[in-house]
Amino acid sequence: MTYCVGVLLDDGVVLASDSRTNAGVDSIATFRKMTVFEKPGKHVLCLLSAGNLSLTQSAISLVAEWMAGKNAQRNIGKAKTMFRVARIVGEALREVYQDDGESLKAHGNDFNATFILGGQIEGERPRLFHIYAAGNFIEATGETPFFQIGETKYGKPVFDRLLHQGMPLAEAAKLVLISFDSTMRSNLSVGVPIDLLCYETDSLKVTHQRRLGDSDGYLTGIRRQWGEGLKRVFLDIAPPDLDE
Amino acid sequence: MTYCVGVLLDDGVVLASDSRTNAGVDSIATFRKMTVFEKPGKHVLCLLSAGNLSLTQSAISLVAEWMAGKNAQRNIGKAKTMFRVARIVGEALREVYQDDGESLKAHGNDFNATFILGGQIEGERPRLFHIYAAGNFIEATGETPFFQIGETKYGKPVFDRLLHQGMPLAEAAKLVLISFDSTMRSNLSVGVPIDLLCYETDSLKVTHQRRLGDSDGYLTGIRRQWGEGLKRVFLDIAPPDLDE
Repeated sequence: MTYCVGVLLDDGVVLASDSRTNAGVDSIATFRKMTVFEKPGKHVLCLLSAGNLSLTQSAISLVAEWMAGKNAQRNIGKAKTMFRVARIVGEALREVYQDDGESLKAHGNDFNATFILGGQIEGERPRLFHIYAAGNFIEATGETPFFQIGETKYGKPVFDRLLHQGMPLAEAAKLVLISFDSTMRSNLSVGVPIDLLCYETDSLKVTHQRRLGDSDGYLTGIRRQWGEGLKRVFLDIAPPDLDE
Repeated sequence: MTYCVGVLLDDGVVLASDSRTNAGVDSIATFRKMTVFEKPGKHVLCLLSAGNLSLTQSAISLVAEWMAGKNAQRNIGKAKTMFRVARIVGEALREVYQDDGESLKAHGNDFNATFILGGQIEGERPRLFHIYAAGNFIEATGETPFFQIGETKYGKPVFDRLLHQGMPLAEAAKLVLISFDSTMRSNLSVGVPIDLLCYETDSLKVTHQRRLGDSDGYLTGIRRQWGEGLKRVFLDIAPPDLDE
């Protein structure tokens, strides 16, 4: 399984991905699911991937190859808008589908590959997209300023309760890590290290990127404080009167 | 969708079910998913159901018919153990499968029907079972003293963090309702009223049963207190230092 989150704020974008892949519980490995394309002053483009690793890796390889190629229409480095970048990633997914789709089906496997795309291109505001396996995509708006892919449910309630687009970047990063903690507690197939990228609006460079392992001080700190805090809130609420 | 929970404690059993059914968002209705068989001094048996309503209703109707029939082996009212009751419910599911399984498959529908069974029979301790569509089942133990069926993920983290078998009945009822609140916030197809039954060990009668609607004072109270409490805990945790 996988867990990736992208959050769109007035102040920027927070993106995070776990790094556990599994083909059955006896085949677990660590792979980075965050890919960053940065050209300081021009663009920061970050892709998070979920689904069949062979498919998402192939799509990213294609996108990277196209950056070195001659067709400017397919070059995310030359795209003027994030919308155009999302189209190119979708096109890469469709090319992978052309290559692998039929054979996967013959082996009884779904074509399972999705991306979150976040970042900013010079001249635009920061934007956030959710790209589906068919290459189509949606864009985050103020009403729903976040996307999750992979094992999305355990970590969703904290966003539904606490996230708002005006939140400072660091607060949103904290919320994202709490969401990861809830997910990792309830699903063993989501695991550290967590790749975290915080992008500040109009900086047009990667302002903060780090990898949080199991013994990371900040991660163990929020794990403890969030757990103890929930317990305190729980104990403070009066139980129902069962003698009524 | 559906959300049902059963919790097994030293002090007894807490069982709860939502009551929303939907066949598409344009076909939503309210159905009780909790069925109680009580014979004071002898047994309290409670079934919670998830899946295709036609299948779970049919299975319960069979169980009820068999109680009025002559075959004592199929009569849950005459069962000496909860294990035997679980077997009878499983048998009812298999009979429904015999009747409806093939036709459902022809229409492209899965045979989707699961139960949580909790309660106590005179001479035994309280027990809790999770009965699958194939009629097989598992029993809760101290390591995992709860079962969920239906939309299980949103409401699981609070159990993973806070539940333990030594918890008083009323505290567990509070936790179950918090779990319902998280689920209902994140999935519209789970909805009030919530049927709640708290059974006290060795009472051999229904000690507490109530139905909580949207405006129920206790439910709105914990919704507010839990939401505000989470927010407080969140704000108390320092954000990560993004300048590091």
